[in-house]
Amino acid sequence: MAQRKTVDDLFVHMLSDIYSAEKQLTRALAKLSRAASDPELSDAFKTHLEETQGQIERIDQLVEKAGLRLERMKCVAMEGLIEQGQELIDEIEKGAVLDAGLVAAAQKVEHYEIAAYGSLCAIGKQLGHEDAVKLLAQTLEEEKATDLKLSKFAQRAGNDKATKEKAKA
Amino acid sequence: MAQRKTVDDLFVHMLSDIYSAEKQLTRALAKLSRAASDPELSDAFKTHLEETQGQIERIDQLVEKAGLRLERMKCVAMEGLIEQGQELIDEIEKGAVLDAGLVAAAQKVEHYEIAAYGSLCAIGKQLGHEDAVKLLAQTLEEEKATDLKLSKFAQRAGNDKATKEKAKA
Repeated sequence: MAQRKTVDDLFVHMLSDIYSAEKQLTRALAKLSRAASDPELSDAFKTHLEETQGQIERIDQLVEKAGLRLERMKCVAMEGLIEQGQELIDEIEKGAVLDAGLVAAAQKVEHYEIAAYGSLCAIGKQLGHEDAVKLLAQTLEEEKATDLKLSKFAQRAGNDKATKEKAKA
Repeated sequence: MAQRKTVDDLFVHMLSDIYSAEKQLTRALAKLSRAASDPELSDAFKTHLEETQGQIERIDQLVEKAGLRLERMKCVAMEGLIEQGQELIDEIEKGAVLDAGLVAAAQKVEHYEIAAYGSLCAIGKQLGHEDAVKLLAQTLEEEKATDLKLSKFAQRAGNDKATKEKAKA
């Protein structure tokens, strides 16, 4: 990886990190959608997959416009987050309990992105990358909305399905 | 790892994950505090280290009270998040740019914890672990406050130091 000494270098590094994270996520979201048994949750993952593809395009767009060059790197944090979700899929059979676990795993992913885009907006603003910040802020709002949507699934999952399953046990 | 089939098992698994995450974090925060050049930022990491030790004790306390038994596991997501911070320390010399990177890395950690404790509160509530939820909610509020504090550093770092450094370059 290139030596990073200026705030501009840090901005490019952070942008490269989230770009890798989003790319990894597109593959993971397809898996989450297949693993979910609640059709609405499965659809929510599918919708967010499409949104994620749009977010990747937004990064492509702002990189081109600002004449930046992304580093080739793998976001190890997203790798760990996805591994956690995969572990749940491997170890819990399809059903309400797995759904509750998938929602929790997905919210961790969303929060990673909320933090990443939040920092990018703050640093991008300071560097005067106004057009880039506009696009990054759009994505930030989408991630926040997805997290909120997932919170509703978390509440619902517990209130009906998961508790019914507990009663059955 | 034990097979997880009920929501109770999922709750214990998620609690074991954040317990491992917090333990890893205590070591990482000491490093962040040494790496920061802004004395106030260094102090903020130190303060959060003490807070994190209290949060670990809270988990010990609720586990004992609820008669739960945590899994021995390593949180791979926190491992990745910490690796990212270490990478910055290794590659950027001490100063305003590294400080800006450390703030961003620490906010990702806080957001991991916000998501984790948020899910634990939601699931714990559904399971009727009222005392546990009270303690988990206290920690959740602390993590949110730390994230907010870090956001202020992110803004300040850019507004004075980082831009000064850019002007010098």
